[in-house]
Amino acid sequence: MSKTMESPIRNGVDTATLFATLDAVKGNPEIAKFQFRATNKWISGTHNQSTIHGFYGAMQEMQHVSAHVFDADHPGVLVGNDHGPTPAEYVLHALAACLTAGIANIAAARNVKLTEVESTVEGDIDLLGILGIGNGVRNGYQQIKVSFKLKGDDPEKLRKVVEQSTARSAVYDIVTNGVPVNIEVEAG
Amino acid sequence: MSKTMESPIRNGVDTATLFATLDAVKGNPEIAKFQFRATNKWISGTHNQSTIHGFYGAMQEMQHVSAHVFDADHPGVLVGNDHGPTPAEYVLHALAACLTAGIANIAAARNVKLTEVESTVEGDIDLLGILGIGNGVRNGYQQIKVSFKLKGDDPEKLRKVVEQSTARSAVYDIVTNGVPVNIEVEAG
Repeated sequence: MSKTMESPIRNGVDTATLFATLDAVKGNPEIAKFQFRATNKWISGTHNQSTIHGFYGAMQEMQHVSAHVFDADHPGVLVGNDHGPTPAEYVLHALAACLTAGIANIAAARNVKLTEVESTVEGDIDLLGILGIGNGVRNGYQQIKVSFKLKGDDPEKLRKVVEQSTARSAVYDIVTNGVPVNIEVEAG
Repeated sequence: MSKTMESPIRNGVDTATLFATLDAVKGNPEIAKFQFRATNKWISGTHNQSTIHGFYGAMQEMQHVSAHVFDADHPGVLVGNDHGPTPAEYVLHALAACLTAGIANIAAARNVKLTEVESTVEGDIDLLGILGIGNGVRNGYQQIKVSFKLKGDDPEKLRKVVEQSTARSAVYDIVTNGVPVNIEVEAG
């Protein structure tokens, strides 16, 4: 507690609130049950648009400060009109973003100084899969590589922070281990 | 071929180009090898920003018409500043977008009329996992539910289109089956 009183904001993370949140969840695990949501609307061809606004968490319906709208499309080479990134590229963004947020939080909690975090994510995909003409070629990425560049504290401490962020990342878990997906259709 | 000559644009999909692309890939599978990328930069706390622009495909370096920049953050309730959706919400968007693009393409290829495609994606997550205080609670979504509403052609035809889109979706494959992820760190 003395450390957080000295300097509760580290790397832009309010560690006092972070630790208070952890304590609150330990006191009532029910507040940790969240449901995130997106709604999507087809526009034309491979162009469609998602809105992210409301979610459930801390035992109540909540909303982001504003509704966020994202366009997805295929580029011309994939018979789209390039009104936005491909859906598969958004997954790479999500992975980088989740690991990076975790790095900031964990570094702050451990009092590790962070001045720079940059990453490049590369996903290799053979489109024979989604085109339905590849014998046993999967539809999704065959592999994903994330390259981080960190500056700030001692390199070994920074590496350990990345390790811990990976061990606690929601999107890393989703992307590496998979999630059961249930699809319902109302047609007519 | 006669069908596509009669009406090559269906549901906003240029089916003539779609079939020509399939033929081109059958002639040279090398052009189907793609690499998608995102770069990410930490800003402060859980706020970070990704840029999606260049990719490799069709045997060359390519670029989207413009660079797309996306902010990710945690909401206040999760000790962030809500400068954007959470990384995990972007995954839901990616899933809806991929299935919807596939629905449009497959409906066009099958000459199935589509007038409306809407979806809601819900992902249940217990944050005890990422907070590191849940015994055996996973970090990522425990389950994801996608609810589609389609209008246009015969309901049974529409359902079959969704089935085929699911069977050929890159993001559905990534999210349900997982992908090997390799993380490299340059620190100091």
